[in-house]
Amino acid sequence: MTPELRIAMIGHEFMGSAHSQAWRVAPRFFDLPLRPVMAVLCGRDPGRTRAAADRLGWAEAATDWRAVVERDDVDVVDICAPGDTHAEIAVAALAAGKHVLCEKPLANTVAEAEAMVAEADRAAASGVRAMVGFTYRRVPALSLARDLVARGRLGRVHHVRAQYLQDWIVDPAAPLSWRLQKEKAGSGALGDIGAHIVDAAQFVLGDTIAEVCGTMETFVTERPLAAEHSGLSGTAVSDRTGPVTVDDAALFLARFTGGALGSFEATRFASGRKNALRIEVNGSAGSVAFDFEDMNVLHFFDGGEDAAVAGFRRIVVTEPDHPYVGAWWPPGHVLGYEHAFTHQAVDFVRAIAAGVDPSPSFGDGLRLQRVLAAVEASAASRAWQAVEASAASGARQAVQGSAASGARQAVQGSDSTSASRVGE
Amino acid sequence: MTPELRIAMIGHEFMGSAHSQAWRVAPRFFDLPLRPVMAVLCGRDPGRTRAAADRLGWAEAATDWRAVVERDDVDVVDICAPGDTHAEIAVAALAAGKHVLCEKPLANTVAEAEAMVAEADRAAASGVRAMVGFTYRRVPALSLARDLVARGRLGRVHHVRAQYLQDWIVDPAAPLSWRLQKEKAGSGALGDIGAHIVDAAQFVLGDTIAEVCGTMETFVTERPLAAEHSGLSGTAVSDRTGPVTVDDAALFLARFTGGALGSFEATRFASGRKNALRIEVNGSAGSVAFDFEDMNVLHFFDGGEDAAVAGFRRIVVTEPDHPYVGAWWPPGHVLGYEHAFTHQAVDFVRAIAAGVDPSPSFGDGLRLQRVLAAVEASAASRAWQAVEASAASGARQAVQGSAASGARQAVQGSDSTSASRVGE
Amino acid sequence: MTPELRIAMIGHEFMGSAHSQAWRVAPRFFDLPLRPVMAVLCGRDPGRTRAAADRLGWAEAATDWRAVVERDDVDVVDICAPGDTHAEIAVAALAAGKHVLCEKPLANTVAEAEAMVAEADRAAASGVRAMVGFTYRRVPALSLARDLVARGRLGRVHHVRAQYLQDWIVDPAAPLSWRLQKEKAGSGALGDIGAHIVDAAQFVLGDTIAEVCGTMETFVTERPLAAEHSGLSGTAVSDRTGPVTVDDAALFLARFTGGALGSFEATRFASGRKNALRIEVNGSAGSVAFDFEDMNVLHFFDGGEDAAVAGFRRIVVTEPDHPYVGAWWPPGHVLGYEHAFTHQAVDFVRAIAAGVDPSPSFGDGLRLQRVLAAVEASAASRAWQAVEASAASGARQAVQGSAASGARQAVQGSDSTSASRVGE
Amino acid sequence: MTPELRIAMIGHEFMGSAHSQAWRVAPRFFDLPLRPVMAVLCGRDPGRTRAAADRLGWAEAATDWRAVVERDDVDVVDICAPGDTHAEIAVAALAAGKHVLCEKPLANTVAEAEAMVAEADRAAASGVRAMVGFTYRRVPALSLARDLVARGRLGRVHHVRAQYLQDWIVDPAAPLSWRLQKEKAGSGALGDIGAHIVDAAQFVLGDTIAEVCGTMETFVTERPLAAEHSGLSGTAVSDRTGPVTVDDAALFLARFTGGALGSFEATRFASGRKNALRIEVNGSAGSVAFDFEDMNVLHFFDGGEDAAVAGFRRIVVTEPDHPYVGAWWPPGHVLGYEHAFTHQAVDFVRAIAAGVDPSPSFGDGLRLQRVLAAVEASAASRAWQAVEASAASGARQAVQGSAASGARQAVQGSDSTSASRVGE
Repeated sequence: MTPELRIAMIGHEFMGSAHSQAWRVAPRFFDLPLRPVMAVLCGRDPGRTRAAADRLGWAEAATDWRAVVERDDVDVVDICAPGDTHAEIAVAALAAGKHVLCEKPLANTVAEAEAMVAEADRAAASGVRAMVGFTYRRVPALSLARDLVARGRLGRVHHVRAQYLQDWIVDPAAPLSWRLQKEKAGSGALGDIGAHIVDAAQFVLGDTIAEVCGTMETFVTERPLAAEHSGLSGTAVSDRTGPVTVDDAALFLARFTGGALGSFEATRFASGRKNALRIEVNGSAGSVAFDFEDMNVLHFFDGGEDAAVAGFRRIVVTEPDHPYVGAWWPPGHVLGYEHAFTHQAVDFVRAIAAGVDPSPSFGDGLRLQRVLAAVEASAASRAWQAVEASAASGARQAVQGSAASGARQAVQGSDSTSASRVGE
Repeated sequence: MTPELRIAMIGHEFMGSAHSQAWRVAPRFFDLPLRPVMAVLCGRDPGRTRAAADRLGWAEAATDWRAVVERDDVDVVDICAPGDTHAEIAVAALAAGKHVLCEKPLANTVAEAEAMVAEADRAAASGVRAMVGFTYRRVPALSLARDLVARGRLGRVHHVRAQYLQDWIVDPAAPLSWRLQKEKAGSGALGDIGAHIVDAAQFVLGDTIAEVCGTMETFVTERPLAAEHSGLSGTAVSDRTGPVTVDDAALFLARFTGGALGSFEATRFASGRKNALRIEVNGSAGSVAFDFEDMNVLHFFDGGEDAAVAGFRRIVVTEPDHPYVGAWWPPGHVLGYEHAFTHQAVDFVRAIAAGVDPSPSFGDGLRLQRVLAAVEASAASRAWQAVEASAASGARQAVQGSAASGARQAVQGSDSTSASRVGE
Repeated sequence: MTPELRIAMIGHEFMGSAHSQAWRVAPRFFDLPLRPVMAVLCGRDPGRTRAAADRLGWAEAATDWRAVVERDDVDVVDICAPGDTHAEIAVAALAAGKHVLCEKPLANTVAEAEAMVAEADRAAASGVRAMVGFTYRRVPALSLARDLVARGRLGRVHHVRAQYLQDWIVDPAAPLSWRLQKEKAGSGALGDIGAHIVDAAQFVLGDTIAEVCGTMETFVTERPLAAEHSGLSGTAVSDRTGPVTVDDAALFLARFTGGALGSFEATRFASGRKNALRIEVNGSAGSVAFDFEDMNVLHFFDGGEDAAVAGFRRIVVTEPDHPYVGAWWPPGHVLGYEHAFTHQAVDFVRAIAAGVDPSPSFGDGLRLQRVLAAVEASAASRAWQAVEASAASGARQAVQGSAASGARQAVQGSDSTSASRVGE
Repeated sequence: MTPELRIAMIGHEFMGSAHSQAWRVAPRFFDLPLRPVMAVLCGRDPGRTRAAADRLGWAEAATDWRAVVERDDVDVVDICAPGDTHAEIAVAALAAGKHVLCEKPLANTVAEAEAMVAEADRAAASGVRAMVGFTYRRVPALSLARDLVARGRLGRVHHVRAQYLQDWIVDPAAPLSWRLQKEKAGSGALGDIGAHIVDAAQFVLGDTIAEVCGTMETFVTERPLAAEHSGLSGTAVSDRTGPVTVDDAALFLARFTGGALGSFEATRFASGRKNALRIEVNGSAGSVAFDFEDMNVLHFFDGGEDAAVAGFRRIVVTEPDHPYVGAWWPPGHVLGYEHAFTHQAVDFVRAIAAGVDPSPSFGDGLRLQRVLAAVEASAASRAWQAVEASAASGARQAVQGSAASGARQAVQGSDSTSASRVGE
């Protein structure tokens, strides 16, 4: 009989819905060493939380997250609340000995993120696991891209160009949601979607960004107030306006530790692009290219092919041997956005059971936060800016480098390549 | 409190897994008037069925389908067993007053399908519903294609070309699974995947095929026996061989009642094509094109555009206004294969609650069966063959044409266009 | 000093313009053993012919084709006049000892084509060469496709699907040009564009169509008369109408001698498709796919690749090693429609100089004509129809099969693969 | 009788071949007010120049460019020699009263370019015209992109992202051609291909880059010496090596005068990308996207469309109403790389005949040079750098802004949109 892993989830909007689907579905397709139980959903408003729990399938509803994270019958705290709450909740949960899965970005400031890493380091000593949720790296096509780079199929990497293009606020009449207010969201395009392409690029390359030079822009500085704020969907608009205090777009160049050049662009003003997370990597021996709007496809150029028949291959990443795919459907039966959340749940559960650090760790989340901070500093100084290295996380990272990173690699490896379909 | 709708599912392989996911997920994203309960899973082997029930999330496991379909605590029988069992199970379940969802093709022969329609007609008189499972029409991009045709955006339809291209048995060493044996599968590429493009074409056009001229081919006539037969996945191969008794590929031309010309091709021998269900429709005022390998996209040409800026639009079918999409994620956050099964469950539950005929009905399934039969007859006679019309189903169809079709339209319409996201 | 090859061209509309460009450009990029001289342009109207000669760059203008083909200072007769004139001109020119390049289709009827082949066979005995102009096979991407098939990279060919989709008369108000009148054009979509995909398919496969089953349709049967007929461009419309006497669309299934199944469709009613000559070939070991609207690209699937990295390669066919390409520009600097005509001129001049039969020969043109005739017969009989074999051309073909085909291969081979850039 | 315009061309390698084709072909498809005569080809080596003249179709060969530019029977000097010779030749030719077409980049240094602009300004007073050759803006799809922006179809432009990706020296064994030596080439990827995307972006936007922040990189710093230097094609390699003194890749961010943000990347190290000049522009009302590897296509998103049917349109830019296209072939019959050179010749001849400044002028070329210089300065200072404005060219630009720009617009406009097919 598979032992239970009891989950408490904090927050129930967009991310809460995606995480719920992941917890519900993961054990139906993947062999898991622990059985996730959707135990408690925690929100601010009792009525809305109760309704969400019913709809999303959580056994209980609660409103006091402090009480929830202390409960003996909770093993995992899954944080899907806005970024300004991450640090406090995560630190409390880790201190209470709960494994923590925290949505990205890790925190709204580097200082908060540092505190979270410190707590995660402490908790790790007693076997408590902490992971930050960058799901796109668990899209099979992006995992395959990383595998190809890791196996040397691209040779020495020269170029990365990554874009995250959306257009949902290109209309100046779009309302001023909380995502456009710095005190709540922390950041605009940079932190919301730029974070994803930074993670994707570092993940695929297996390398870190050393320095950046960027610029940020707010094209529409004043917007109508939404009568009610509700994440992406606040549409009832009042006749008053308020200031947009985050960036609409952020662009930066980057140099990686290993010598690659990067070009990054995150914008909510690319008319016609809905969720175009794109990344192309060019190496001395080959290239890969990906666009989330065609998420089941990876384009791969093998520079070793005879020139007469060389060309970017359109790999439909739905073969049994592709990362995560064996658990799902036959070839050509494509996956969707939510599947990456399921893969994340699978990887997290397995890391907990195996007693290894999950990836990306809080330390990884902090390092990414520092890249974003360097971009902001660069935009202010109008010059290149080194990405700050941190002694604490450096030490922790060194530990992972010698011991856990092999294990972590193994975990990600086993998740992605040998994930057998349950019971088939 | 939403009343329950208790499901018994017969069969637990590939389709059983997809249907289970649909029943599990549908009430979490869609407002349903009845709450599906995954009550009983029925299979032949007790141990395997029990294991499947645990994995797929069914409360009970059973092995006697006759007993199951008689149970008072079962409202719906969902038939995912091989085609040679459909008729017997469906007729018994309908006679017992259960709503029936039957996987395609409706049956292995026209005669069986006729019996099923007759029983469905009888059952309908007492409010019992029967639906055949053609899920691709519930892919949002294909539903949108139909909407565009129905709204006249394509004008008079001149051409349909539809292909279903796979390559999973192009290797002559691929084993002789039950899908390659006529007595079990009824048909090969024609019935398995050709059926899908016939349904997709008739659905998108809102028109029926009147006559066909086709040919069928078995490229590899002898294959190694699998040591164990298990649907798609029987891989252990013995050193004996057996004859392939179904078609590897089927091609046919068609003329629709409304005058359109069709070209159809279904094959399991298209190297490199994994699940390329493709359809292009050309009308006097525009065109649409779809490929399941890029399932979230519909290409649409609007012939009314100024020639200087006219071109096929790549519509990413993930907008809130697109069929079924509002219940899921924000724009650009794509769906996958299994979502169409969820949409099917939603439509079926709503039709039951609304007391209207679901679509496609058993009558629709029979008519499709007759198209396939006409293709086979044509391949044998090497000449054009009219698709047989049936008095019984014609009468039934007339009823639907005058009364239910409006309701059915409304059902499909309400499912697809006004399906609001649960609780948001 | 390279000896001259003096050309007389009959006709000066669309095809005349393309051929003129070919004769003008070929010697500037390719090393030719004979130097083409644009000597005489022949048309019906003296004034228009004189103007065309000036514009297109021909030294002389003439109106009596009979006199022209007899001139001692003419070596080649290049027939770009409408199809109903081909037979008479070609036979006279060959009888006069001139090499003949004749635009496709070879003739409007099989009988005419047979007469042309008979004369070509006679002329061949005295070293006179005859070629029919199917230029698409000289698009580098299609030549590469053939090379891949010929080298066995696709294995045994199972499927060919070929379409030629245009939309230039989908508007019922488009005028009744001569191309829509059977007595002038001989045929509609079938002969005009269907001929191209039949040639392309037979060329790429290196195989012939053995039997067909088809259907033809005229969607708009009455059209306004153009005030003036001028090929594609007659736009001034009168208020009278006349009957369309050719097919708007033709579809057929085919079986090749070697066992492949083919699906063909030619239409002028595919809204949004401008010149989509498409062909996909699926073999046991791989596939190729081509679309003329992206003419510099060939998609190639190599079935021998590891499944995890297999996918259709988008080969940009602009490498020096690609057929014909070495004579032009650096990689990625794409070619256009007219370049295939230049390649045709090159191949023809080289065949003349080498004393070998050019390809496609008049015999090839006749065989293709018989395929089209079989499609028409099949459309009338509503049943499969064998493609007629001809004793005469069969014998001729046999000769080519044993001796000339090697040479022809060599010619096409040398043109396409070793064509060195002039003077570089 | 159309008067002659006698051309002398300096240089006969890659660009010389492309320009020759343009002069040869332009009068055959476009109605020109002056008839170009390919009078003299001038090169350094007598034998090679004579051979090139024969091959490329020039009446005379010469080796003394100073004598050539003074000849009374020369009207136009077309400079296709390496960049370090541009200034001297152009200044001499303009001083001699010859119209000058100078290949890009205008010069190797800003100082040289300033001298050329000064001379061009002087010459303009006496009706002598000077144009710099940025041909990609004369690709119909890019001209159409500009038209859409100019007509306001994109609204306010927020983003430009432009890349020029090649891979021809990704192999470290590729030889050290003159293009990799700073004293000859002036610049590497930045000046060679980066210049093209800067021009394309400024052209499409009708706006200028105000400031930049960039970085440059030489990935392979030492290469084998070619036994013989010959532009792109020096392949015989010696066993000695030499230093690469130009950039392999250059990336920069940019801010346009009108507020748009730009991201630019030029590299010769993008494995698998052959000639991928790409540009995407996002405005408040729409977007366009272009990739030269698919040069006949422009993708256009119209933000005004109903969301349910909105999507990037794949416009096949081969309609009669598209810029330049009416002179060529029917819809769907695509153009190639060299056609943009023909369009350039047409525009230049018409500007000369009309007595208006051609576009891009030498002033435009200087301004572009200053953008490149600012990128280099920024790469050195590791900070943003304003693009220097020049008093002289500023004044000149003002004149164009009030008077000539309208005319220039008219010229480009008439070339591109009303260019009627000759003699049709």
